[in-house]
Amino acid sequence: MKVRAAVLEEFGAPLAVQEIDLAEPKAGEVLVRLVACGVCHTDMYTASGADPSGYAPAVLGHEGAGVVEKLGDGVKDLKVGDHVVTLFSPQCRECVHCLSPRTNLCMAIRAEQNLGHLPDGTTRFSRDGEPIRHFMGTSTFAEYTVMPEIALAKVPEEAPLDRCALFACGLSTGLGAALYTAKVEAGSTCVVFGAGMVGLGAVAGARLSGAERIICVDLSEDRLELAKGQGATETWIGGEDTVQRVLDETGGFGADYTFEATGIVSVMRQAVESARMGWGLCTVAGVAGKGETLDIVPRYLITGRRVCGSSFGGVKGRDQVPQLVQRYLDGDLDVDPFISHRITLDEVNHGFELMHNQDGIRSVIEL
Amino acid sequence: MKVRAAVLEEFGAPLAVQEIDLAEPKAGEVLVRLVACGVCHTDMYTASGADPSGYAPAVLGHEGAGVVEKLGDGVKDLKVGDHVVTLFSPQCRECVHCLSPRTNLCMAIRAEQNLGHLPDGTTRFSRDGEPIRHFMGTSTFAEYTVMPEIALAKVPEEAPLDRCALFACGLSTGLGAALYTAKVEAGSTCVVFGAGMVGLGAVAGARLSGAERIICVDLSEDRLELAKGQGATETWIGGEDTVQRVLDETGGFGADYTFEATGIVSVMRQAVESARMGWGLCTVAGVAGKGETLDIVPRYLITGRRVCGSSFGGVKGRDQVPQLVQRYLDGDLDVDPFISHRITLDEVNHGFELMHNQDGIRSVIEL
Repeated sequence: MKVRAAVLEEFGAPLAVQEIDLAEPKAGEVLVRLVACGVCHTDMYTASGADPSGYAPAVLGHEGAGVVEKLGDGVKDLKVGDHVVTLFSPQCRECVHCLSPRTNLCMAIRAEQNLGHLPDGTTRFSRDGEPIRHFMGTSTFAEYTVMPEIALAKVPEEAPLDRCALFACGLSTGLGAALYTAKVEAGSTCVVFGAGMVGLGAVAGARLSGAERIICVDLSEDRLELAKGQGATETWIGGEDTVQRVLDETGGFGADYTFEATGIVSVMRQAVESARMGWGLCTVAGVAGKGETLDIVPRYLITGRRVCGSSFGGVKGRDQVPQLVQRYLDGDLDVDPFISHRITLDEVNHGFELMHNQDGIRSVIEL
Repeated sequence: MKVRAAVLEEFGAPLAVQEIDLAEPKAGEVLVRLVACGVCHTDMYTASGADPSGYAPAVLGHEGAGVVEKLGDGVKDLKVGDHVVTLFSPQCRECVHCLSPRTNLCMAIRAEQNLGHLPDGTTRFSRDGEPIRHFMGTSTFAEYTVMPEIALAKVPEEAPLDRCALFACGLSTGLGAALYTAKVEAGSTCVVFGAGMVGLGAVAGARLSGAERIICVDLSEDRLELAKGQGATETWIGGEDTVQRVLDETGGFGADYTFEATGIVSVMRQAVESARMGWGLCTVAGVAGKGETLDIVPRYLITGRRVCGSSFGGVKGRDQVPQLVQRYLDGDLDVDPFISHRITLDEVNHGFELMHNQDGIRSVIEL
């Protein structure tokens, strides 16, 4: 079939929205009609050419939600008409990692996904017979995409798909960092560095965990206002004195949990040093630039601080994305404020500009 | 009373063994007749002047064991004749940290201890009326010392005190890093970097935890031979390829638990990068040089590795040192091979030389 899609043709150049070919789903695969897709930093990072593992041509996009249109052979957990959220982090439920409660890093299709292929090593996208590669196993900057069943989370039909799309990456990453990776305990003190989509999700996750104090740190008063809406009990403009301020505000000890959601390594270091002596846990959720390192004075570790990271919030997608969407339907999560702009597929490059200018939290493409 | 003690008079100079004055124990304090004391890196580090928080004159030594000789007012958990291990990391059982199962960093006397004082802000050691400061709250390079009750662990009398002394620092630090900080799970794969006292203790702790594979990495064949005796299933000479070798030997994943017991930050980085994706935990037990940092590529965290540190192995001294000594008495731990040299108090500087030359694991001063 012919579909319109935003194709990365050349690093550093705007994406080219055009009509390309999409083949039928093969065994274990599903044709999804996309309804909404968030524009996320990883798309822009890859489009810029900064990601050394990037490739072109490819259909970008990974924060998608849509409706199942057609099933390949052997698909058993989805049916036509189901509402789904796309998962760049799949859940096969069979690999060593899926069988462990300790990680969400499904290994089933990782190698081929990193190469821009579906699990059988080929692509469904093409143009004039030449393959166009998939991106993050999702390729949701398109009217339709084909994905493996194991990379689709079925979500309740009552949930609007534009809101659901946010659970495909940023929101789940932040929520999960607090709920599943750090496992924030009730009554604790949390500091969240960064009030973008991931940081705001972490604020909400800390609130859902019953944290008593949730301090959100950012450079933008506007974003900090959104953090208040998600449950931040205090909001601070960040600076060089942030670590000292955390210590001053916590009897000299530091915070039980800190979250890093900026990707800036100097902020990661602040998040480590703001964590409480004895048991403070720093969860790194932001993605650092190529070649950058988080430099830790070992004394911070020896005196009881712990550091971990979180990919997709530790969320096991097919099991837990539906649970998170249900919490939204239950009224536990206020998702609407995250959608700052609604754009068309043709405006995808404008979405990148808005993100580059830190204008709003999320632009959602309506398809 | 007059006691012979090894006094740090001047940084970088040999300790001066001499007769000085020791006052009676005050309220909550205990006079201990020392029987044995290990010579540990921290003593040498402070004597060298490299520790910016060091001070002189002071009586060094912190890996001691002895017999209670006299009680100050109000001491309730010890009696004259009890065998004790000295604790540079006390356990008051009342502070916010002692009441938490998550940390052993007792806060009760920290500030005064760091200044070289007993809890009331004064010293018991003096010379010609001028105070001589305590070191790490212990000062066990002496015939007798006065310490707070909360910094003494009562140990079974059947345990020889020269063996008990090792539990006062290095051995408990290594054992506890595996048992209490990392909480190694049965069946897991561990890599221990460094086969000094702490690393060998971590090997033993991993064995006691039921680890299936225990790989010990060091530069010395002699020390690696000792590691085998403690339960290492494999021993490797370390090098730049160690991380790759761990990956090769673990199906590309890395080790469930890694332990760093060298204090060298480049080795710490290897320990982080050798930890398993998904859930590997790197426990840093070595003490790095002033101003050095452990530089971590954040991607290692995002893909599920965790990093923590361990001070005194997370051991709550009064409760758990006796339990560890009991495991020695039960035949679970082979402590004898750690004592490589027996020296007199007058030979304390020779003990530093042996350590500097990496000759043996521990010199024990017999008092």
